[in-house]
Formats: sequence, C-alpha cells, structure tokens
Amino acid sequence: MKLFSYGDGSPITAFATVPGRSALTLIRCSGKGTHELAAKIFSLPEKLTQADGNTVIHGWIVAHNECVDDVLVSVFRAPKSYTGEDSLDISCHGGNAAGQAVMTALRAVGFRDALPGEFTFRAFMNGKLDLTRAESVMELVSARTDKARGNAVNRLSGVLEKEISAIKKKLVEVLSGAEIFLDYSDDEISASVEEIAGRLPGEKLAREALARLQKLAQSWRLERIYQEGILAVIAGRPNSGKSSLFNLLLKEERSIVTEIPGTTRDWIEAWVSIGGIPVRLADTAGLRDSSDLVEKIGVERSRNLLETADIVLYLIDGEAGITNEDTLLIDSLAIPHIVIWNKTDIAPAPDEVLAVSAKTGEGIAELLESIQTAIAVNAENADSAVSASLGTERQKNLVDTAVTALQEALNLAEKGEPLDLVSPLLREAVNALGEITGEVSTADILEEMFSKFCVGK
Amino acid sequence: MKLFSYGDGSPITAFATVPGRSALTLIRCSGKGTHELAAKIFSLPEKLTQADGNTVIHGWIVAHNECVDDVLVSVFRAPKSYTGEDSLDISCHGGNAAGQAVMTALRAVGFRDALPGEFTFRAFMNGKLDLTRAESVMELVSARTDKARGNAVNRLSGVLEKEISAIKKKLVEVLSGAEIFLDYSDDEISASVEEIAGRLPGEKLAREALARLQKLAQSWRLERIYQEGILAVIAGRPNSGKSSLFNLLLKEERSIVTEIPGTTRDWIEAWVSIGGIPVRLADTAGLRDSSDLVEKIGVERSRNLLETADIVLYLIDGEAGITNEDTLLIDSLAIPHIVIWNKTDIAPAPDEVLAVSAKTGEGIAELLESIQTAIAVNAENADSAVSASLGTERQKNLVDTAVTALQEALNLAEKGEPLDLVSPLLREAVNALGEITGEVSTADILEEMFSKFCVGK
Repeated sequence: MKLFSYGDGSPITAFATVPGRSALTLIRCSGKGTHELAAKIFSLPEKLTQADGNTVIHGWIVAHNECVDDVLVSVFRAPKSYTGEDSLDISCHGGNAAGQAVMTALRAVGFRDALPGEFTFRAFMNGKLDLTRAESVMELVSARTDKARGNAVNRLSGVLEKEISAIKKKLVEVLSGAEIFLDYSDDEISASVEEIAGRLPGEKLAREALARLQKLAQSWRLERIYQEGILAVIAGRPNSGKSSLFNLLLKEERSIVTEIPGTTRDWIEAWVSIGGIPVRLADTAGLRDSSDLVEKIGVERSRNLLETADIVLYLIDGEAGITNEDTLLIDSLAIPHIVIWNKTDIAPAPDEVLAVSAKTGEGIAELLESIQTAIAVNAENADSAVSASLGTERQKNLVDTAVTALQEALNLAEKGEPLDLVSPLLREAVNALGEITGEVSTADILEEMFSKFCVGK
Repeated sequence: MKLFSYGDGSPITAFATVPGRSALTLIRCSGKGTHELAAKIFSLPEKLTQADGNTVIHGWIVAHNECVDDVLVSVFRAPKSYTGEDSLDISCHGGNAAGQAVMTALRAVGFRDALPGEFTFRAFMNGKLDLTRAESVMELVSARTDKARGNAVNRLSGVLEKEISAIKKKLVEVLSGAEIFLDYSDDEISASVEEIAGRLPGEKLAREALARLQKLAQSWRLERIYQEGILAVIAGRPNSGKSSLFNLLLKEERSIVTEIPGTTRDWIEAWVSIGGIPVRLADTAGLRDSSDLVEKIGVERSRNLLETADIVLYLIDGEAGITNEDTLLIDSLAIPHIVIWNKTDIAPAPDEVLAVSAKTGEGIAELLESIQTAIAVNAENADSAVSASLGTERQKNLVDTAVTALQEALNLAEKGEPLDLVSPLLREAVNALGEITGEVSTADILEEMFSKFCVGK
C-alpha cells in the first residue's frame, strides 16, 4: 500500500457498515466525479447530478438494465462533506447480496475500493479535522465501554486539539522571545545582562506549558486502560464459588461491552464493564479437572493466565475459612490482588476481609469499588471526562518528546548555557506538538496512522 | 408480542445495521413526534424541526450536557418516507459504544424499541407497499446469492404484485359475469339456454388465469432452492481426493455466499454459490478416522449427512479405478448423485464418466453444470429472472388455494352445475389473491408475517 494512492482524489467506495443480517447496509463514495459516476447506475441520473448538497434521493441502482436495489442516496457537495470532497452515502438493503451487488455496480463505473482510513485521510488532507480528531474517530469505533466512548468523543469535539494548540502557542512565544536574542547582538536589546544571563526569557510560560504537557502525558495511562481494558482472574480453591462470582459479575456488569469476536477465547472468559473499564474476566474454574488448585497452579495455562493478569480476585470459601493452602497461594501472588471472603450469607467474614455472597449478591458493589481502587483509577476518574486526555500511543510519544526537550531546555537555561543551545530544544518541542495535530507531518507517519483504520472510515 | 402495538404510530427506533467494528452505524426512528423528540437531544434542535424532508443535517447528539456522538441526521417527512410517517435516519459512528449511547439517548426522550418488521409493517399499513413487496424486503436481506437477490428485487419492484393483480382482475370479471346470472332471472338475460348451460360465462378468461396461477405455483420450487439452498455431500473412498475437490469448489465458487453464522457447522462444511444456487458443500473426509469408508458409512453422523443431502458427489479414485466398494456404495444411494472420476490428469477416465482433476481444475466447469442439471434448474433458470415468481411459502399456499378453488369451479361449470355453486369458489380464489397482496388480510396473518422480519426493518 503506497501513500500516494490515499491522496489522489480518485473516486473511492467502501462499505461503511458491517455486512450481515440487518435492515440496511451503508456504502460510502467520495472523490472526483462521484455524482456523475454514480448517476450512470442510478434510476434518476439528472436528479442526482443536479441535487443540492445535503439532500436525499430515493431511487434504484440499475446495472445492465436490471434493477440491483432500491436505495436512498444522500448527496454531499464539496466542501460540505465528511471528506471535504463531493461524496455520496448509499443506503441499500441489508444482507450480503444487495450490498455486494451495489458495490459491483459502483466498481464497474469506475469507483475503486477505498484503502483503510482513506475517507478520514482525505478529510484530514482537506482540513476537515486535525490528526487528534482523526484518531479519535478510530478510538470511537473501537470503544468497548461508554466511558471510552465519552473520552473519544471528547477528543473528536476538539478538546485535545485545543489544549495542544494552546500549549504550542505558549512555546512559540517562548521560542520567538529566545530567538530575538539570537538574531540581534546584545547591545541592540534593551535588557540588562542580569535579566538575560542564566534565564530563559518567558521561562514562566515554558514551565506552565511543561506542567500541562506532563498532565497530558499522565492521562495516557488511564486512557489506555479504558481502551484496552484489563485482565481480572478469579482464583481460589475448589468450591470457593468462583463460577458463581463469575456469573454474577457477568450478569450485572456486561452492559455495553458486547463480545468482540476473537477476544473472548472461550466460555470461561468474558468482557464486562467495571466503572467504564473494559475488564476481561477469567474464571480459573474451567482450568482444573478434579485435582486441587495448588497442583493445578502448576498447569501452564493457569499459570500463564495468572501471570498476565492485571488483578487477581482471590476467593476464600467462607464455610471452610482461610486454609494454609489459601495463605500459600495468596503469598505467592506477585500482582495486585483482592482477597474476597465468599458465602458471607452463611459464614460471616472476619472484619478486615472484603465479604461477599456470590449467591445473594451481597457485597458485590463493594467488590466493584475495590477493583476500581486496586487499579487506581478512582481519583483520576473524576476529571478525565472534562479535561483533555491523550488517545493514542503516537500522541503519548510525541508529548514525551516535547516534555523531554522542554525539560532539557529549561535545565540548560538554568545553568546559564547560551540561548543558541536552548533554542533548538524549544523548536523540537514545538515541532512534536505540531506533529500531534498534523500541522507538521511526514508521509510515513500518515501512512502508519491511517492504515490502522478500518475500511470505510 | 401483540399486533396492536405494531400499528400504534408511536415513536420507534432500532439499529438498521449490524453493530460492530465498522465506520458507521445507522439508527432508524419513525412515528408521531419523531422530529420534535429527536430535537431534544440534537445540537441544532430548530434546524432539525424546521428541516425540509429529504435533507441531511450534521450535528451532535447531546444528552445530560455531554456530547454523545457526532452524527448525520436524514430527515424525512410524512408521507415521503419508508414508513409513510415522519422519520429520521441517524448515521452515527461504528463500533458498539457510540450506537448504544445514541440509542440510550433516544430511549430517554421517548422512543421505544421497534418490534421485528415494524418499520415495514407501518409502510404496509400506510399504503407504501403491498405484502408481496414487504415480504421481498426480507427475502432481499436473507439472499445468499446474487440470483436470489435479483429475484427478490424483481418482486420488490412490483412484478409479482402486478401479476397477481392482473390475474385477480380477470377473475373478478369472471365472477361478476357469473353473478349477473344469479342476480337476474333467466328471462331477463338475453342469452340462449345453450350459451349458459354447462358453461361458465368468461370460461376462457378463467382458464387463462388458472394457467398463469399454475405457472406462479411452479416458480416456487426453484425460488425456494435459491432462497434456502441445497446440501451437496462429497463422498468416496479414502484418497479419492474429496478434500481437494472441496477446496477447489470452495476457492472458485465462494463468491457472494459469505458465511452466515451458525449455518456452516464446522470446517468440513461451507456455503458456495453454484449457478446462483446457495450450496452447502460438505466434505465427508473429516468424518472418518483411519478405517475405510464402508465401515464409516455406518457412523451415524456420516449417514445422517448422506440422508439429508439433496445431491451426492461421489468421487472415484481414478488411479485405483472403480472398485467393488465403490459400486456397492453408489448402488446404495437413494438420492440424486453424480459419479465423478477424479485424477483424470494422471488416470484417464472411461468415456461415459464425468472426469475431473481436483488437482489441475480440469473438468470442474462440467461438474458445476452437472450439479445444476441434477437439481433440474437449468431449463427453468432462463426466464425466472424476468417473469413473476413467488417469494414465500405464504404466497405459495394462497396461490394453491386459488388454483384448487378455480379448478373446482371450472369442473362444476363443465358438469353443468348451477352458477350459485360455482360462484363462491370463484370468490374464494379472488380472496386468496387479495390476501397475497394484502388487500384482504387479517391481524393474525400480518402478525405472523412481520414478526419474522429482523428488527430495524
């Protein structure tokens, strides 16, 4: 896949929805001559080519004198469209055959299949959105919980772009202040030597920018958790109630996190949403046969699961109490874990232990809170929805680059190093921020970014 | 599910596309107050409520002061909409979370979840389409091959409706002709006794109608094959090349028939399209272990597969020639089968046997033709695309009712029975035809029909 084909403006088409047993299928078209080409296979060609932008026409796709499908065509005219080009959304019937037949007809008149992310790429190239918004489109599609959706929508609405631009503006100010000293000799500037020596002009601004960048960098940890989720493994001795707890959490918390094919590997795993965090919940019950758990911990599969877990929910059989086996196992856990006393409905727990009843549901709310606390998201949780946060690894790396350069610049300035050493570092920080929004970008970066998109986006 | 709720005109909503990892998700809304309700959660409420029909507005879904998603809203105004009611198509971002969040917001302002087929039901009730067209919408969504799609589109465009109406018109003419004789005494009619006795007035018209109805009834056999497909099982002794043939047919003929979850049961089965017919192709190779096939035919699974097959492709190992075992097995097959000589590239076949090479692909085109011939569709195939054909069991049953009544009426008339015995039969035929298009319909029939639709349709 070569980048040049993304930007060639040629007429492209792609399914914008998943083909399958549904009422409708949506097909997108965009690029040069879109309306004229589509008119060749539309029952009302003139109505289509003469239609105002943002209008919908009802008609038939007709190919080789045969009716292909009864469709609604939404007409968009440049620059008022998603891509900024002339474009069309064709709403045809659902199922596999109708969409395929319309697609075949579109290809026959000259549309080529869109590359992954090509619609959004064109939108970016035509100035319809910056890179942070473009990326948020993909984050939105991948969002597994409502919280993840909310954060992505936040970026889609431009919150991150505005924050990055505001920080960059400050740094540009600092940079231009510094460069005045480079461009003119000392005696031309009416500043005392004391004012300049060992100090960066606009240092305060630079420190403010640094703090805001650091806050953004911190936001990524939680954001990644919202996007990728965590693995929580339920462990415990036989008969401690692992499967009951698993089913209970599943039933109550499944909500939006529907199964994503290929990620839930079998019936002992499922995705649930806990406080907006997608949690892959695994029940180790299915891993053992009849032998006891200690023995089974030796089993590779079980061990792998525990080793890759972000958190272990260790269940105590309340009826049996805490056995030596339990103590041994809990002590061997190197990762965050919550010890849970189960069957509190028939066996009251000691005070210091989190007590639940997987049977009655008692204590489940507390357990969910404990899980959130254990992954330390509660505190950060509160304001992350309203303030800017980073959405991709790419953004995080660039913010890190900016932070490092800026810190280095401030250090050098503090040590009294000449501004012609400081200035390039400031410029590096500014460029990194420009790359985040896409003001500064290379073909490589763009190709890498958009090829991760799904086709039709 | 009660029928009355279908027709209540209340604002309804449903996903019109399959939620999943895609660029967009389409949500449909229809019913009383649709625009006003949706405006409550739209960033440009006045633009929405004042929008002309068939226009598209770009804006945000906003709930609880939070941006839910960036959407395109297509506005339709009664009666110019799919349902004939005020309605909206909301195109929001793909994935699971965005669509769910928009749906939650819609429910919160008063939309209820649509029942299966409710949009199409309303379209029918509002005279936007007759029952044959309504049913074709569902056939279209379920179509597995391009041929099945073409036939459904044919009905969607009204070909069947027109044919039924034309036949019905003839019968109504015959009926009214007959009823004149009932309403008036003989001497008031200026027809000779000979003209009336033993003859139905308009008999020629009635016979013409009968012929057309019979042709329609015949169309159902093939139509059902196009819709439901057939099961073709590949059998033969070990090493005859069953899996190679399976893979070859799969590779070449998969085309539009994508897998429909739950229908292809495992890796030894797959859907392929042969001459527009969806064929579930099964390879029995996976059914045996190391023992020979005769032994294995005894295995229940294998036997079941062969018993339910519509056609068996029996493969001869060309290198080994036709063995006694082969002859035994072929003779035991009670269902249509094609004997195929494989490995013709290294072992030439006797003249009378169909020869293929699963390795080189030689003879595959002839094999595909033989399969079509064996299920006897070639001859009928030619004109079924242009002429009217039936699309559902319901239609077939009603046509059968009409045919039976009409034949009985003609018989009675021929025997010289009085017209007051003939006339009710003609009326029965007319009513059956009225039921097909929905002119005559009962709540039961409608409920039964539309509840089979998918939600959102």
